[in-house]
Amino acid sequence: MKFLVIFGGSSFEHEISIVSAITLKDKIKKHSLEFLYVSPNREFYLIDKENMKSKYFASGEYKKAQKAEITKGGFKYQKGLLKKDYYVNFDVAINLIHGRDGEDGKIPGMLEFFGIKAITPNIEASVVSYNKLYTKMYAKEMGVDVIDYEVIDFPKTKFDFPIIIKPARLGSSIGVSVVRNQEEFDYAFDVAREFDDLILVEPFIEGINEYNLAGFLSSEGFVFSKVEKVNKKEYLDFEKKYMDFSRKETKLEEVDAEIEQKIKEAFEKIYNTTFKNALIRCDFFEKEGVVYLNEINPIPGSLANYLFDDFDEKLELLAKNVTLEKPINIDFAYINKIQMAKGK
Amino acid sequence: MKFLVIFGGSSFEHEISIVSAITLKDKIKKHSLEFLYVSPNREFYLIDKENMKSKYFASGEYKKAQKAEITKGGFKYQKGLLKKDYYVNFDVAINLIHGRDGEDGKIPGMLEFFGIKAITPNIEASVVSYNKLYTKMYAKEMGVDVIDYEVIDFPKTKFDFPIIIKPARLGSSIGVSVVRNQEEFDYAFDVAREFDDLILVEPFIEGINEYNLAGFLSSEGFVFSKVEKVNKKEYLDFEKKYMDFSRKETKLEEVDAEIEQKIKEAFEKIYNTTFKNALIRCDFFEKEGVVYLNEINPIPGSLANYLFDDFDEKLELLAKNVTLEKPINIDFAYINKIQMAKGK
Repeated sequence: MKFLVIFGGSSFEHEISIVSAITLKDKIKKHSLEFLYVSPNREFYLIDKENMKSKYFASGEYKKAQKAEITKGGFKYQKGLLKKDYYVNFDVAINLIHGRDGEDGKIPGMLEFFGIKAITPNIEASVVSYNKLYTKMYAKEMGVDVIDYEVIDFPKTKFDFPIIIKPARLGSSIGVSVVRNQEEFDYAFDVAREFDDLILVEPFIEGINEYNLAGFLSSEGFVFSKVEKVNKKEYLDFEKKYMDFSRKETKLEEVDAEIEQKIKEAFEKIYNTTFKNALIRCDFFEKEGVVYLNEINPIPGSLANYLFDDFDEKLELLAKNVTLEKPINIDFAYINKIQMAKGK
Repeated sequence: MKFLVIFGGSSFEHEISIVSAITLKDKIKKHSLEFLYVSPNREFYLIDKENMKSKYFASGEYKKAQKAEITKGGFKYQKGLLKKDYYVNFDVAINLIHGRDGEDGKIPGMLEFFGIKAITPNIEASVVSYNKLYTKMYAKEMGVDVIDYEVIDFPKTKFDFPIIIKPARLGSSIGVSVVRNQEEFDYAFDVAREFDDLILVEPFIEGINEYNLAGFLSSEGFVFSKVEKVNKKEYLDFEKKYMDFSRKETKLEEVDAEIEQKIKEAFEKIYNTTFKNALIRCDFFEKEGVVYLNEINPIPGSLANYLFDDFDEKLELLAKNVTLEKPINIDFAYINKIQMAKGK
């Protein structure tokens, strides 16, 4: 198959997305790839495969690449004095923009509007993943446990220290702090406020286990990755998470069969039909046998390829399942009826 | 001010949107208006003011109008052999696409992506209004009561008849039925399924009062419309609602001051900052002094102009408050650091 990888975006995770796309380029062997870069100021550039190096973007060299525009069914560009239209050739797009633009529903909505088949969360799926408050609301509605939380307008909370403070709408742990006293709370609140005006706090639970599971729904049922038990100190900071986006393989710890089963059941409830067309990674907490949803990554770094066996094959299975919205037949019946009633 | 009214869309409410735009054209006196039509197959057309008649669209005549494309900061069109670019001149767009495209987040996301100032719900606001299940989740989270509900996969429910059955994602009462027995339930379920695979039921409460309130948040605080007590038989069918979208004025019943106060408090909780840049209408139920949110119309028919005194002035106040997303500075610091670490 021929994929068009869309990456970059006006996002705090812009650079992460570049690394993610480069990693995917190295990882995908059986399919052909085209690359479409969304620059920091939201222009589209077609990037030659040999230019898929981080320096090419950091240096601004990408500005010499062919510009493109979104249009019905795909992307086009104009060349020559007569500005003849050319169309980018691909079967299915992959939305690989992490954070704003990609995961907040903008790129998903545009792809849907222009009828472009894509591996991507749709708008609803984006919104319930992107806003951590909405993730909580959604998980509860789907019957999946979440860690207790509070929305705060000041550095004050009903919870005892230690707590975690999070801006509602950022990924990759940006602006997230563990806070152990009021002084730290005051500072961390200001940091979080730099990124969002909606701030959440949660109790920080010592000795909690963390697990990641990626997957998607295909015509053959749910396809799951391996379950990864995350071995990390408290939580990854941005830089460590950044390196995480270039992962191509991983060594996995043995996971208790009963916990694994509970995690998969929770994943299915979350994925539901809301996440159709997307390969997502859910991050879970577990303590004393109870599984809690922590967050949904609707576009995990380099599509969490390192968690899957035979990633090429899985990607193709997902791509074949991608559906577009149902068309709506507009026949102007009401207007015609009114025109008739008016005797016109 | 100069407004660009965007209407039409690939929506079951396409024709309603046309009527809504025509009504707005007649209602707005102090501002100048341009019109951008999104055709059933999602092409953009610039419509001359004198062609803003329903017949022009029903007959397909609009296809002779100037086509346009969305681009950074606005809309452009090409003319002449050399395909010179021209830009549509306006200050603020008005998203007047009811239902799919306009209220599901697609057009809002595109306007945001391209940095176009607009009176519109944003993507989050669209999603929590468009999906009735999400409206319930959101209202509960904001501390506003809702009528009890159940998501069903079959015509079976925990509630006693009569009940209301609703597809989750459609406006204007499409696919909504009041059901009094199992036979009606079976039929109504099939009807609802025609429109959506997510179906909600609620108990149908006899003798409930219904109130509508429109408004928005400006720099001067909340601006409210008059509260309308809705006088209707059970609920409006599609055709009656359709006529409702062309309303320019209304006669209002006296509303109990205490109820009005409760409705305004609930409105403020719902509007929050989630609905910034939008003029919304919330529909409330009331029984025995308890106010329940029924639904949020993030783009009410002809912007609920008939509920406001001096609509022109209110529109200008809202337009002046419209903000764009904060820019994100992307400095490639992480990539540069890694390049340096690699010694390149």
